[in-house]
Amino acid sequence: MAITLRQSDADFEQRFAAFLSTKREVSADVEAVVRDIIAHVRAEGDTALIDYTRRFDRADLETLGIAVSRGDIDAAYTQADPATVEALKLARDRIRSHHQRQMPQDDRYTDAIGVELGSRWTAVESVGLYVPGGTASYPSSVLMNAMPAAVAGVGRIVMVVPASGGTINPLVLVAADLAGISEIYRIGGAQAIAALAYGTQTIQPVAKIVGPGNAYVAAAKRQVFGTVGIDMIAGPSEVLVVADGSNDPDWVAADLLAQAEHDASAQSILMTDDAAFGKAVEEAVERQLRSLSRSETAAQSWRDFGAVILVGSFGEAIPLIDRIAAEHLELAVDDAEALLGRIRNAGSVFIGRHTPEVIGDYVGGCNHVLPTARSARFSSGLSVLDFVKRTSILRLGAEQLRALGPAAIALARAEGLDAHARSVAIRLNM
Amino acid sequence: MAITLRQSDADFEQRFAAFLSTKREVSADVEAVVRDIIAHVRAEGDTALIDYTRRFDRADLETLGIAVSRGDIDAAYTQADPATVEALKLARDRIRSHHQRQMPQDDRYTDAIGVELGSRWTAVESVGLYVPGGTASYPSSVLMNAMPAAVAGVGRIVMVVPASGGTINPLVLVAADLAGISEIYRIGGAQAIAALAYGTQTIQPVAKIVGPGNAYVAAAKRQVFGTVGIDMIAGPSEVLVVADGSNDPDWVAADLLAQAEHDASAQSILMTDDAAFGKAVEEAVERQLRSLSRSETAAQSWRDFGAVILVGSFGEAIPLIDRIAAEHLELAVDDAEALLGRIRNAGSVFIGRHTPEVIGDYVGGCNHVLPTARSARFSSGLSVLDFVKRTSILRLGAEQLRALGPAAIALARAEGLDAHARSVAIRLNM
Repeated sequence: MAITLRQSDADFEQRFAAFLSTKREVSADVEAVVRDIIAHVRAEGDTALIDYTRRFDRADLETLGIAVSRGDIDAAYTQADPATVEALKLARDRIRSHHQRQMPQDDRYTDAIGVELGSRWTAVESVGLYVPGGTASYPSSVLMNAMPAAVAGVGRIVMVVPASGGTINPLVLVAADLAGISEIYRIGGAQAIAALAYGTQTIQPVAKIVGPGNAYVAAAKRQVFGTVGIDMIAGPSEVLVVADGSNDPDWVAADLLAQAEHDASAQSILMTDDAAFGKAVEEAVERQLRSLSRSETAAQSWRDFGAVILVGSFGEAIPLIDRIAAEHLELAVDDAEALLGRIRNAGSVFIGRHTPEVIGDYVGGCNHVLPTARSARFSSGLSVLDFVKRTSILRLGAEQLRALGPAAIALARAEGLDAHARSVAIRLNM
Repeated sequence: MAITLRQSDADFEQRFAAFLSTKREVSADVEAVVRDIIAHVRAEGDTALIDYTRRFDRADLETLGIAVSRGDIDAAYTQADPATVEALKLARDRIRSHHQRQMPQDDRYTDAIGVELGSRWTAVESVGLYVPGGTASYPSSVLMNAMPAAVAGVGRIVMVVPASGGTINPLVLVAADLAGISEIYRIGGAQAIAALAYGTQTIQPVAKIVGPGNAYVAAAKRQVFGTVGIDMIAGPSEVLVVADGSNDPDWVAADLLAQAEHDASAQSILMTDDAAFGKAVEEAVERQLRSLSRSETAAQSWRDFGAVILVGSFGEAIPLIDRIAAEHLELAVDDAEALLGRIRNAGSVFIGRHTPEVIGDYVGGCNHVLPTARSARFSSGLSVLDFVKRTSILRLGAEQLRALGPAAIALARAEGLDAHARSVAIRLNM
């Protein structure tokens, strides 16, 4: 049973604040172990990768090879269900066309006094994509991470994925191939992050690393940050479904459970202005739980972190929606557009009764790598912008330097920076 | 004496790689101390701020007040040189008009099958700006950090600045006022970061914290990251001046010293295709060093981290320029535009012989908060984009769900996520 919070209750604010600050993730203290692994990979290179992979992934890279070959990829296609491959192609094409609209434009202009200014965008040279092994080895995530990089024009996209027990999910290899990735290594964990950041005999280092991973991978990304760029560190997934009483309780229950089945730390929240509807959804959740392959995980998530929030009206709910700042926000209400116009914080919004969040996970076209744990207050989902960087450009002639120089000299002197002042003054014979 | 590296030497690659990997910063291990300070501020609020400020800044906030008043700001204007205030206004206006061009556009469209997609940008609700005390308390940095937030439409911009010995640089208060900041607290260090992230009785928490600081401030920003957003952690400043023999050696020497005077860990690099010119610049540096107020700092930086790189031609130098990925790149050569077109990595580029980097520090209009320590390979300078976030939008009707649903179901099943599949199937009566 999820908790129920009523906006009309006297202690609502207190309970809502406590709900918001509930920690859903216990991060294991793996800093020291990860530091050792990184140092070892830097010192020993491929040898360290082979050792760690034997130990942690029970795979022998001396036989299998560190690199995945073209033959391995071709073999993966033969193991994959053709309908699923077609679905991956549809997903890839839709992700590509949506992300193409995100390319930022260069800007170069001359201002009123003749100073030239500009912003120029260039792709990051090389990117490493981490893909987890085991049950969390999702082909959809390969597309979601790789396609924005490909659209941005990243010249070299490298994928690493552990071969747990010697094997890699064939659909992960197919997805990589569909995204145009040809450089793939069967390594995982902190050792894979170290190899991407510092390089080994086999692997050239990259400039930026993205993709989800366990506590070791997250800690390794934090430790190599600075040497390379990293993406955000994703927490457990969450959905906030804002629904009025006109919805089918079974549809909404299914959406809540789609989130809950990810992880026992996932969070599903229903916000409604109709208490009877809320009750009906809760009953539907219990009913649907019985026939899920991952019912244990989903039940635990719903019990520990699920919530039904009963609000007086959706208008009154807006500040609550903004404070939750959900990774995924479904607006299954009549005038969803008007409500959306008043909401500030959400990673991705799914509008209307026919847009289950799951469509966004796979084939909507938008990205499913989104800010978790309330970070939509200050950050955005993965996009082409994560794979480009901006260089600013400034150009003055002698005349412009005469116009702006004296102010620069005044500020440099006020800041006690004589050499700054001189660098301008010497050109003006001042 | 800076080191000299000749591209024509047999061991150049080895020496250049070693030069690139030289650590210029020793980061003190302050993690534990900072963790204590943050916990104490979370537990004790204002009382902790008052205690720490008495101890670390030798200032009595019980007398002075935690908040800076309107009267304090008015008093700062009377202490400031009017010409400097005018220079700050010019800087502010130029920064504002350049950054206004960076506002990203919302995008909303319907694709060929009737799916609506979109990206909507909204400003971060509230931002905290850290300003160091003492000699590094720069009014120009107040403008560079605050104006992009103001242009982005951030509703609440809060500044914190320690009152070392009870006083704050009046120009810092003037710059804040010119940028439209009215909420200012006289606190600094890790305690100020904790107050911004978690709030106290006097200070409401913010959603994101930006601005430079010492090792304690940097560690505190890292520790509160996740609860709030943070900007990049800036390292020591650096400049790469690419100059041919037609430049005045004194102009180039002045530019190298402008960077070197910042900090003993700053780095100034001259790259030239003319060995005699390189020699002349080195002599000019030695000469100019004698008459600088911060000559000791500048001399140390030039001795320890300065370099003259002699290249065969600027064309051959491009891969080296990209590997250095300088925070500031001056192109003082004849066909600078052509060279720029072939360079990928740089924080900010200053073109031609009349654009000393110092103009960009103050009044150029572009931002002076830029990626250091080779991070221009994967990141960008501060901009309006750091103060907005994107929400993606997806809307399907029944017909679009029928079109895309089966592919989503196929992928969900392939990933072993039954509840995902059901969330779509239940709406399609499948």
